Parts: sequence; structure tokens; C-alpha cells
Amino acid sequence: MSATVHHLGRDSAPSLEPLMALVVSDMNQVNSVILDRMQSEIPLIPELAGHLIAGGGKRLRPMLTLAAAKLIDYSGYRHFKLAAAVEFIHTATLLHDDVVDGSDLRRGKTAANLIFGNPATVLVGDFLFSRSFELMVEDGSLKVLKILSHASAVIAEGEVNQLTAQRKIDTSEDRYLDIIGAKTAALFAAASRISAVVAERDEEVELALDSYGRNLGIAFQLVDDAIDYSSDSETMGKDAGDDFREGKVTLPVILAYARGTEEDRKFWKDAIIGHKSSNDDLFHATELLKQTGAIDDTMSRARHYGQRAIDALGAFPAGNARAAMTEAVEFAISRAY
Amino acid sequence: MSATVHHLGRDSAPSLEPLMALVVSDMNQVNSVILDRMQSEIPLIPELAGHLIAGGGKRLRPMLTLAAAKLIDYSGYRHFKLAAAVEFIHTATLLHDDVVDGSDLRRGKTAANLIFGNPATVLVGDFLFSRSFELMVEDGSLKVLKILSHASAVIAEGEVNQLTAQRKIDTSEDRYLDIIGAKTAALFAAASRISAVVAERDEEVELALDSYGRNLGIAFQLVDDAIDYSSDSETMGKDAGDDFREGKVTLPVILAYARGTEEDRKFWKDAIIGHKSSNDDLFHATELLKQTGAIDDTMSRARHYGQRAIDALGAFPAGNARAAMTEAVEFAISRAY
Repeated sequence: MSATVHHLGRDSAPSLEPLMALVVSDMNQVNSVILDRMQSEIPLIPELAGHLIAGGGKRLRPMLTLAAAKLIDYSGYRHFKLAAAVEFIHTATLLHDDVVDGSDLRRGKTAANLIFGNPATVLVGDFLFSRSFELMVEDGSLKVLKILSHASAVIAEGEVNQLTAQRKIDTSEDRYLDIIGAKTAALFAAASRISAVVAERDEEVELALDSYGRNLGIAFQLVDDAIDYSSDSETMGKDAGDDFREGKVTLPVILAYARGTEEDRKFWKDAIIGHKSSNDDLFHATELLKQTGAIDDTMSRARHYGQRAIDALGAFPAGNARAAMTEAVEFAISRAY
Repeated sequence: MSATVHHLGRDSAPSLEPLMALVVSDMNQVNSVILDRMQSEIPLIPELAGHLIAGGGKRLRPMLTLAAAKLIDYSGYRHFKLAAAVEFIHTATLLHDDVVDGSDLRRGKTAANLIFGNPATVLVGDFLFSRSFELMVEDGSLKVLKILSHASAVIAEGEVNQLTAQRKIDTSEDRYLDIIGAKTAALFAAASRISAVVAERDEEVELALDSYGRNLGIAFQLVDDAIDYSSDSETMGKDAGDDFREGKVTLPVILAYARGTEEDRKFWKDAIIGHKSSNDDLFHATELLKQTGAIDDTMSRARHYGQRAIDALGAFPAGNARAAMTEAVEFAISRAY
């Protein structure tokens, strides 16, 4: 409902601008913590971490922490350090993902492991991960530590689950939702939730923010999955078609396989085990995804989770924060694909 | 001093047996926690973690936590979970080391990454690392969390420092001690210290146990460095000569290079950058290490740190625990090389 109302009041495409504007000054504080705490006497650490951190990510997760604090009128400063901890966890997983995926691009730049090698990339990820826990310990909330250590374990489980599902065309939609719920949405949820913890708000508030972040995370990931089959590397900041070439079974593929003819299903089987990875094959795959409505319906699923994210904000007072957080969801599900 | 007295009273070679006997029943509790908490709904996680965890490591670090608790007469149970957390951190770093080093053997078995691949090995390491923090959070001591999150960051820094020093023949003894102080000794120190925290003993007791663990860790690492040039893979459980072939500049090499003739120094330069890596070259390196007294003096440095570890126990009451912890040091520095 609120999405519709909001839509009517806006004549431009939804964007992240209101969210960024909402938190811009707080984000400067978070950025200071990030830059300060990624330092080390070992020069390679800030050099490698800086490649990714200075490399212009959206810092969406710490933005969620900051926006949630605005939404609930938290006027303290504890969430700056915690937002930095969230970004360190995210950066650590990205560095490890670069090693795991072997993708050539990350945020439009050469992936860290191709410049610095796998060993340094793994170890600097470990450093940032440890540093994130040091930041949480400095804050001193055991509840935040519990939320984020659990989220970290769940992320790693989700990544292993995805690895196990790789090149398995019979992955179910349920399993796929488990995977992205863990590897992507868990940190969105935790990032949104922790502001309610430091603000000492009710469990109900915590859970509403958790739900907002979790559903937004799933929506984001589903749209990313769709985009991977329909844009170029310039738009995505990573190689379009990567998922296809790596045999990743994402929702578009799951739907196209379920709906395909015998011939289509044979194509998908071959493609996912790596026997079809040329540009022509990618083009054919994209055609099949469009024909079967797999892309459209992936987007429709994404809108479903997006709407749930928006509705999770229902009990919070209207205002800049809620409007910006709502528009962030609309942005997520309206991205070009 | 106590070492000498102790020596006189024993007619067999020093061993880890007394330490293991001291903690055998407590270690069963720790092992239960380890086996219980390495589980996951994603089968690959316990499978991969179990390869290493069930693979027969000595579990020296959790043994130190348990022995320290005996030494200070702690009668609670909190340290079981924390000892498991320490072992998980150690296991996570070993898994990541396997990826970083590319060694073929670990504890006499094929390294995890060669069986399960680098991606799964990195991710299961991340899982165990996160799980270790979950265990600490369950215990609930912010001081323990601080000690172990800091130790983890220091370990990662030490690993990156070592990576940066790799193939650099001009690494100084000071820098090398910094490296092993971080990558090896920091976790020995933290493992020994945390029992004093849960037992709520004075800072002085904490620091004495920290010093015991730290010096023992350095002694262990130095002897390992010597052994790598003088034993076969059966004794070590990893490939002898690995350090040489990977261009790792360890203390034996630092000393041999400093003391060598012009010709020797040229050999070491070539060897460390990877131009001499045959078995004949390894044999020649070993000869040079012996001729220059580099191995003997590495062992002598190890004994120095071992003695400091023993002396750090000076203020604790004599008894089984102190005797076993003392003999563990004597074992470390008396290993065949």
C-alpha cells in the first residue's frame, strides 16, 4: 500500500538518493571508522583492503544500519562503529568470494585476487573479519555480537550451500531461496536490526527491522540474478553472464528449466555442467529465459519480497526515514535488466 | 631453574604425556563441544571440517586452556566452550593456510584444499571462525571476546607479514620474530590466558599465563623451522623442505645467510627466489645450515624462549599442572630435528 501511495507522489524513477541523503553525514562518521580501522603496520593490508573499500561500493549495508537508527529516532553514536563492522564483514566475504568465484571484475575493477593473488586476498579477508569483531567488542553489546556472529556463520553456510548446488540443474526454488536468504539476506537483516539493539527498543522493533532487511536482501539478489542474464559488464560492475559460465543455478534458470521443452531442458543440463559456455550459448540461454517468462517471473518474485520489506515498515511513523527506506526497496526492484 | 630440577627428576625424554594426562577428562568435554558445534545442515561443512578436526591434531591450544585452568584451580566449566572456540580459530587458520601455502600434506594427510578444492576450504574456514565467535558470545565474557578477536586480527596480520616477506632473503631476525609472534604465538598466549579471565584471577595471573603461552609458541615455531630442514614427511606430518621450496625465510635461513660466504649467500639468494628447488639444492641448503651452526643456534634461540615460558610459571604453586606445563616446553625444544 505505502509503495503505491509513494509511487503516485513521485514523478521520477525510484532511486537510492533519498536513502543516501538521509544518512550522508552519519556515513562520513562510518567512513572515518572504516578508513581508520582498516589500517595496519603491514602495508599490504590497507593497500588490498583499500582496493575494494575505496573502490566505490554503495555501502548499502551500513546505510541500512544508519537509516534504521533514523527511523527509530536513535540519537546516540554507537551505531557508527557497528555499521563499519557490518561493512568489514561484507568486504571480507567479497574478498573470499573473489577467490571462490574466480570472477574477473568486482565493482567494475579488476578483482583483488587477480592483482594481489589468492593468498593475500584470503588473509586480508580474515583480517577484516577479525577487525569487525574487535569493533563490536569495543561497542560491548553481547546481543549485537550474537546477531552478527550468527549472521556470519549463516553467510558461510549459505556460501557452502551454493557451492554444493553449483552445476546442479535440479536445485529447487526452495533450496535456492535458502541459499540467498543465508548468503545475502542475513547480513541485510542483521545490519538493519542492530540499531534497534543499541537504541534499546522492543524485540518487536528489532524483528520488524530484521524483516525489512531480509526481504530487501532477497529482492536485491533476485534482481541481480535477473540482471546477470541481461546486461553488460559496464552496468553491473561484474561480468554479465558470469553466473551462466560458472554453472550457478539461480532462480531464472530454475524457472526456465522447469518450464522448458525436452530440448530446452537438455540445453540447460549441458550448460550448467559447463558444456555450453560460449557467447552464443549465453545468448540462447537469455532467449530461453525470456520465452519462458523466467526473467519476468524472477522480477515478480523480487517484487513480492520487496513488498514484504515495505510492509515490515508499516508500524513505524511516516517521515523521511521511512520514505527513503521504502524508495530503496522500489529502487532495488525497478533496476534495469 | 625449575626446568633443571625437573630434568634431574626424570630419566626419560620429555614428552607431552603429562600434559595430556592432566587434561584428558576435560578434553573429552571440549571434544564433545567441537564435534557438536562443527555440525551444519550443509553436509559438506562437517565433512570438510572433520577431515582436519578428526585428523588427529594434538589440540595443543585447547590443552593449554585446560592446563592453565588446572594450574589456577579453576573448578568451573566455562573454559570447555572457550577451548573449543580456540581450536576452531586454529582450524580455520589451518584451512586458510592450506589454500595460501599450497602444501600437499597436513598432519600426514592430504591437505583439505586438494580434496575439497580451494573454494570450499576457504568458506568452511570462515564458518568455523564465525562459529568460534558464536561460542564466545554464548559464554558471554567481553574480555575473552576482546582477547580472542584481537588475537585473530594479529594472526591474520602475521600471515600477511609472512607472505610479504616470502622470497625476501634480507628479512631480519627481528621481523621474523614479529611474524611468528603474531601468526603462531598470539593464539598460544590467548589460549593460555583466557582461563584466568573466566576464573576471575588478577591481571598479573593473566599476564603470566599469556607470557607462558607466547614464549612456548615461539619456541615451538622455531623448532618446527629447524625440523623442516632436517626430517622427512613422516615425522613432520607435512612435507619436509616445504619452507625451502616455498621460499619462506625462516630463522635457520636468516642465520645461515648472515654467516655465509659470498658463494653461500648467492646460493641462498637464488634459492629463496625459487631458482634452486631440487632435492639436491635442499640437501646443499641443509649442509650449509649445519656448517654455519644455523640449525644449532635456531635451537638455542628456541631454548631461550622455552626457558622464559618455564620461568613465567615461577609464581604458580608446584604440582601436577605446573610440572606438566613445564615438561610440555621441554618437549617442544627437545624434539628430534
